[in-house]
Amino acid sequence: MGISEFALIERYFRHSGARRSDVRLGVGDDAALLESPPGSELVAAIDTLVEGVHFPVGSRAASIGHRALAVNLSDLAAMGARPAWALLALTLPSADEGWLEEFAAGFSQLARAHQVALVGGDTTSGPLCISVQVLGHVPRGTAMLRAGGKPGDALFVSGTPGDAAAGLALEQGRLTASDEVSARLRERFLFPTPRVALGERLRQFASGCIDVSDGLLGDAGKLSSASGCGVQIDYPHVPVSEQLVSAVGEVRARELALTGGDDYELCFSVRPENVHKLHAELPPGQWGYRRIGVLVESPGSTVLSADSAVMHFSHSGFDHFA
Amino acid sequence: MGISEFALIERYFRHSGARRSDVRLGVGDDAALLESPPGSELVAAIDTLVEGVHFPVGSRAASIGHRALAVNLSDLAAMGARPAWALLALTLPSADEGWLEEFAAGFSQLARAHQVALVGGDTTSGPLCISVQVLGHVPRGTAMLRAGGKPGDALFVSGTPGDAAAGLALEQGRLTASDEVSARLRERFLFPTPRVALGERLRQFASGCIDVSDGLLGDAGKLSSASGCGVQIDYPHVPVSEQLVSAVGEVRARELALTGGDDYELCFSVRPENVHKLHAELPPGQWGYRRIGVLVESPGSTVLSADSAVMHFSHSGFDHFA
Repeated sequence: MGISEFALIERYFRHSGARRSDVRLGVGDDAALLESPPGSELVAAIDTLVEGVHFPVGSRAASIGHRALAVNLSDLAAMGARPAWALLALTLPSADEGWLEEFAAGFSQLARAHQVALVGGDTTSGPLCISVQVLGHVPRGTAMLRAGGKPGDALFVSGTPGDAAAGLALEQGRLTASDEVSARLRERFLFPTPRVALGERLRQFASGCIDVSDGLLGDAGKLSSASGCGVQIDYPHVPVSEQLVSAVGEVRARELALTGGDDYELCFSVRPENVHKLHAELPPGQWGYRRIGVLVESPGSTVLSADSAVMHFSHSGFDHFA
Repeated sequence: MGISEFALIERYFRHSGARRSDVRLGVGDDAALLESPPGSELVAAIDTLVEGVHFPVGSRAASIGHRALAVNLSDLAAMGARPAWALLALTLPSADEGWLEEFAAGFSQLARAHQVALVGGDTTSGPLCISVQVLGHVPRGTAMLRAGGKPGDALFVSGTPGDAAAGLALEQGRLTASDEVSARLRERFLFPTPRVALGERLRQFASGCIDVSDGLLGDAGKLSSASGCGVQIDYPHVPVSEQLVSAVGEVRARELALTGGDDYELCFSVRPENVHKLHAELPPGQWGYRRIGVLVESPGSTVLSADSAVMHFSHSGFDHFA
């Protein structure tokens, strides 16, 4: 790409995202200058999307822009942080104006919804690859960590995991469904909703939290092992959406809910004595989460059937579509 | 890459860089938790290196690791910031242990030299591409901006620009030189020195500053246009290294010093009344910088010969090697 193309690209991002009074200097200098609120800790995450790895070749640019930010906001949500600023490193093979406009719109819409300012970036030519780095804040000492769980803590998950994996399979033509069901599930892959507001509210209740990006079973296992314990998930309590059941049937739906990726929901643990307060202050129906199991002393992840038999799941449930 | 390969990679980076007491939580959770010093502004930059674009295919992994951090530290140096933390997004085609060890060593050595902790990262499989995001601090309101220059300000540059462009040409076999000269110039491309200490000291003297990454002439032009003025560079004052002159001759050496890229030196402006104090407190011989021109009222960049004639340079001097 020539210099004028880079200039063009920068124009698309200079006014992207929210305007914030704590940005002393945004895009355009060597670095951004930012004012953190007093009494806070800075929360920083970075995540990359690569074409053909994290999204199918030829995906809609608006979805790529949305997801590049969403996966990072989800990391902040898992800490209970309030997002503030983002930096974007965009590598792309050519400067297609239509593509850029759509990408910037997808990124910017989500950024504005969460009051996130785009404060810096870097555009380079190369294979399509997007790294976003987000910065946010939590009041000092209040962040939710993966390591905070204890045996006996109740385990919860937000939303209906598995939808995104089915959405991706639909996008790739590895699965078919009715137009309405297909549209809904694809939306869940293409435009995931990071649970930022839930994460912030959970800080006062949750002992541990992780975002569900690689599959609920695996990510719940990461939370429990970081907490030095194990996890037991009650199969009948794993939430599945109507659309997912309609597309793949009940059995595969639960399998996908446990092993599918790209959900960007939150999985969190709560001390038994706090569960009542959680339910009272954040009604599950309103906030969209469900109790799915418990942290246990013995290490490892177990899924129990309705009659308490141990069920076996591979992490590659997803590959059944392949 | 399989899950075990990602785990392997994470092992290489978990203890990379410096240890800092202001890192409450580093690599390993959804995000890092960091404590900024009171009274400071946060300074954030992100830069990407792509194989075949920013470094030749098959470059030494230690150099890639070093450069990925150096180009970002250089952005912080240009603001006068003290670096603190880095996040690394590494996309690579396969997990080669020897390559990873070398890359991590190159990254970590530079990080430790600047007391930078690696606090987060993301590893994905795909074409080789490295985004690093660095965070640092300046006392509130003291950062050097590109926009701070005024007509009449003296213009300076650190180091001997052009060396890195010749070093790259030597790496690629587009240029030959004696072993000693070649080794020195290649080193300047492969392991550039970000001018962090100089940048921090310059905060009290410089009116404007930019890092020289795309060629001195172009970057000085960016500083002056951000400052709403023009720049006049005195050709005979442009510093060139002995090695560069030995490799390409006097005329091409100055041309490369003006138009070559990848130097990561600092170009800065100083009010006339502060020049004496700058020279007294940061002796040019000791700190390695030189006066090369002046900011002027009329926009645009001009290079003047010894007899004050206007000289013309294209930004593509570099291509003479092609």
